[in-house]
Amino acid sequence: MSPALRVIPLGGLGEIGRNMMLYEYGEDIIAVDVGLMFPEEEMLGVDLVIPDISYVIDHADRFKAVFLTHGHEDHIGALPFLLKELNVPVFCTRLTRGLVDVKLKEHRLQNDAHVQVVEVGNTVEVGAFRVEFVSVSHSIPDAAALLIHTPLGTVVHTGDFKIDHTPVMGQHTDLQRLAEIGKEGALLLAMDSTYIEIEGYTPSEQTVADAIERVIADAPDRVIVTTFASLISRIQIVIDAATKHGRRVFVTGRSMVNNTQMARELGYLKVPPGALITAREMDNQPTAKTVVICTGSQGEPTSALTRMANGTHQNIVIQRNDTVILSSNPVPGNEKLVYRNIDNLYKAGAHVIYNRLAPVHVRGHAAQEELKIIHRLVRPKHFIGIHGEYRHLVLHRQLAITLGMDEKDALVLTDGDVMEIDEDGARVTGERVPAEYVYVDGLGIGDVDHIVLRDRQHLASDGMVVVVVAIDRQNGALLRRPEVMTHGFVGPEEEPTIVEGIQSLIADRLGREQTRVDWAGIRDTLKDDVATYLHEQTRRRPLVLPITVEV
Amino acid sequence: MSPALRVIPLGGLGEIGRNMMLYEYGEDIIAVDVGLMFPEEEMLGVDLVIPDISYVIDHADRFKAVFLTHGHEDHIGALPFLLKELNVPVFCTRLTRGLVDVKLKEHRLQNDAHVQVVEVGNTVEVGAFRVEFVSVSHSIPDAAALLIHTPLGTVVHTGDFKIDHTPVMGQHTDLQRLAEIGKEGALLLAMDSTYIEIEGYTPSEQTVADAIERVIADAPDRVIVTTFASLISRIQIVIDAATKHGRRVFVTGRSMVNNTQMARELGYLKVPPGALITAREMDNQPTAKTVVICTGSQGEPTSALTRMANGTHQNIVIQRNDTVILSSNPVPGNEKLVYRNIDNLYKAGAHVIYNRLAPVHVRGHAAQEELKIIHRLVRPKHFIGIHGEYRHLVLHRQLAITLGMDEKDALVLTDGDVMEIDEDGARVTGERVPAEYVYVDGLGIGDVDHIVLRDRQHLASDGMVVVVVAIDRQNGALLRRPEVMTHGFVGPEEEPTIVEGIQSLIADRLGREQTRVDWAGIRDTLKDDVATYLHEQTRRRPLVLPITVEV
Repeated sequence: MSPALRVIPLGGLGEIGRNMMLYEYGEDIIAVDVGLMFPEEEMLGVDLVIPDISYVIDHADRFKAVFLTHGHEDHIGALPFLLKELNVPVFCTRLTRGLVDVKLKEHRLQNDAHVQVVEVGNTVEVGAFRVEFVSVSHSIPDAAALLIHTPLGTVVHTGDFKIDHTPVMGQHTDLQRLAEIGKEGALLLAMDSTYIEIEGYTPSEQTVADAIERVIADAPDRVIVTTFASLISRIQIVIDAATKHGRRVFVTGRSMVNNTQMARELGYLKVPPGALITAREMDNQPTAKTVVICTGSQGEPTSALTRMANGTHQNIVIQRNDTVILSSNPVPGNEKLVYRNIDNLYKAGAHVIYNRLAPVHVRGHAAQEELKIIHRLVRPKHFIGIHGEYRHLVLHRQLAITLGMDEKDALVLTDGDVMEIDEDGARVTGERVPAEYVYVDGLGIGDVDHIVLRDRQHLASDGMVVVVVAIDRQNGALLRRPEVMTHGFVGPEEEPTIVEGIQSLIADRLGREQTRVDWAGIRDTLKDDVATYLHEQTRRRPLVLPITVEV
Repeated sequence: MSPALRVIPLGGLGEIGRNMMLYEYGEDIIAVDVGLMFPEEEMLGVDLVIPDISYVIDHADRFKAVFLTHGHEDHIGALPFLLKELNVPVFCTRLTRGLVDVKLKEHRLQNDAHVQVVEVGNTVEVGAFRVEFVSVSHSIPDAAALLIHTPLGTVVHTGDFKIDHTPVMGQHTDLQRLAEIGKEGALLLAMDSTYIEIEGYTPSEQTVADAIERVIADAPDRVIVTTFASLISRIQIVIDAATKHGRRVFVTGRSMVNNTQMARELGYLKVPPGALITAREMDNQPTAKTVVICTGSQGEPTSALTRMANGTHQNIVIQRNDTVILSSNPVPGNEKLVYRNIDNLYKAGAHVIYNRLAPVHVRGHAAQEELKIIHRLVRPKHFIGIHGEYRHLVLHRQLAITLGMDEKDALVLTDGDVMEIDEDGARVTGERVPAEYVYVDGLGIGDVDHIVLRDRQHLASDGMVVVVVAIDRQNGALLRRPEVMTHGFVGPEEEPTIVEGIQSLIADRLGREQTRVDWAGIRDTLKDDVATYLHEQTRRRPLVLPITVEV
């Protein structure tokens, strides 16, 4: 009997972001995507969240390759952390490689890494797996679904995708090839679930092109457009509309400048001669004949748009008749920052066009009707939802069942689960693989744990109070007035009264000589007494840090 | 010439929440609403945000009364803080008074405060103002718009409202009375702008009644419903549907129990005999004949629904065939908590129905078409948007202009602005009144300022390191190995290495004897050197607190 195919999500199932999936057959393991997640509100001070890769490290000899579906951070962002540990070959499409290269350079890995470009339609053989790249539409060019051919049958791993019949940069979802696979019936369909809650269809990128062109055509003066720096088709739309209406384009913001240049060099972006201008050329260009493309669609504090909104951009001061287009939606968690920018742009006198007011953005993921089409075309024996929080995966399973799939064939997997598929069917084995959040903070990878975060939370909510007490080592008597320092606890006007209160309290408790000096007891008493006193006075619970010095 | 009417927003214009507006004519000042705002993410450790009332304190002799439009926290929550300073009479409708009374008891103000009930249709005279309460629909009963009659004309202050032609609890927006005012033309329309970005109409509460009844009718077993505790009409809907389908209702969660009881006593909630059951009665009731109404619609960590989702509720364990209805939308900022509950309920095996899947909630505010109707009926000479972030106020002004209003008559005011209206027109004077955020943290009101918050932010992001150094007071030599403590900085495995590193560094810097001991210099050097060392080692910037002890 041939071995089972094992499917092991290390990230992205039961959460949004940090996508990483392992496929294992016999002695061979491959990974699809190695993404990062940006920290949530309660992950104080954390820079990035990456997958736990200890399982592949433990099976390093069997781990053969990484395949990347597309170049977004939540699919490639943790790759350098993996490659530092295990330098396996990486396979991806051309633009994805361009974006990976930038990351590898930052981590000084560009000379050692083996990143190989695969064109869509082509296949790579690694151990027991033949992995075929299939074109899909998404909000970045060169996105691919993977057909993972195994001795047991073919896995269709969609990655992020949508169906767009009029994509601006010509990249369709290859329904033909998926239908071909479906003719024999796929073994497993692992499909994007991000927008399972959305009814109907995701509108085409062409609707955005039309809306943006209308705004640029009608704008009374300068137009400023912000979008995701990786959304190359959107940049193309803006350049095309600007050129058509006799405007020239200035690009600003580090990642926007870098991506525009890279996409141009790789041939993804078509820029007519003279369409782009430098900051100096912009000064001689009438504002009514200018379009600015910039970073800042998520309200990032140091981005170009945020600087403009705050009046601190080096080249651009918002004027009364400027029109600002936010060609993007705020990612959940970024709403406040995005709307703060919009408010500040309005205050500076600009017109602001955002998605609630005009169709200047479309989503990058498939909605329900698109998902149904893929289910019907691929006709899988087994199904799992990928890329989604738990409810998305449950809802996607329910959709699969509605479409006629047997309940036992549609499963919900979450990070760290192991699914096995063989001739007898598919099952979640009950085995668990490490798949917890790994926090990156500065140079530290994984050292920030829930205890560190709990301490930060405590410090964040009420600040801290340090009490330094000098004690006679012979008799335990207080030698001088205790020193008290506070941070983030009370305002400057209230502090002196609180400090005096603490000093009196300590003088009262520790003033007397003792026959036996109980140092641990003194510290505990100090901590508890001061904390109780502060809570009575303020109803706050700062971290109290008693320091006893024997003199 | 008669004096100007002065309109001074102290909160709620340029932000959502913390609503408070002053109207001033001659020697008389009245306030409409005294609300609070819940803290935003960056306001670490803050409990509440309230308006700055120093302007009315400075004009205490002229400050005559407070009028409340309805009983939501963002309109009444800061009232106790105001009444502690200035015990002026308060006028409001009956349910609003019930909710205010609960607050005043918490603050031990119930014996001193003068809160008077005014029925809709009735008028109160205070100084130069005659204030008339007019019925409006909103997501709480007994909401009122105010017609503020002044010698210069009538101000229509809508408060929060929508137009609902089939409200479940019979409370319409009194279009007749507004039309009557509009016949002569109002002086000023100050109108809710919360949902100016939404096209069309807000659906009726009746659509929710239908949807919830359908879910309860079809549910295979127990049904659990969460909503806002103040949304009395929604509670009525659930009780009615349960009764109709032979189910009995258990209410849980402190504010839900309190509000249900108060609304029943005041006659707002109609409960058939035997419809409600206690926890003990529930144990003998078949689960398929039970409905639970509970708190937790915003994912509040200690609420009933969150406890159920986490498996820690004292009476209710989620079962495989339970149906949970979230009859609410997450307030911006609460999405993560709400969706975490949904995920956990799914994991426990429940069916979860929320607003993305079925119409089990409607908004409480008017959308564009409703706003237009009020503009047309009231026909104001002047207009300002209220209750909204800056962009909402700008968009609402644009709507007013689209409807034919002159640009100079439609203004945008923000907190602290002063608008004057007289026979010559309306203008923003340029005078500024204090209207900054006032933070409540524990017992402290206003002492937490931006410096305290900045310190908390610093502590939150990288934690802290305390270094205690004992130094010979004669020659400045280091006397013993420095003591180092860290909190929220690095994990337990990394800490010893870091601590040793700091100790070596200090021994290196301070080991030698000096002829002159420069204490301030030692502290600064310590702080900088240790901070630099830690940044090199970890790329983190904890708060470094050097403590030097002379021995």
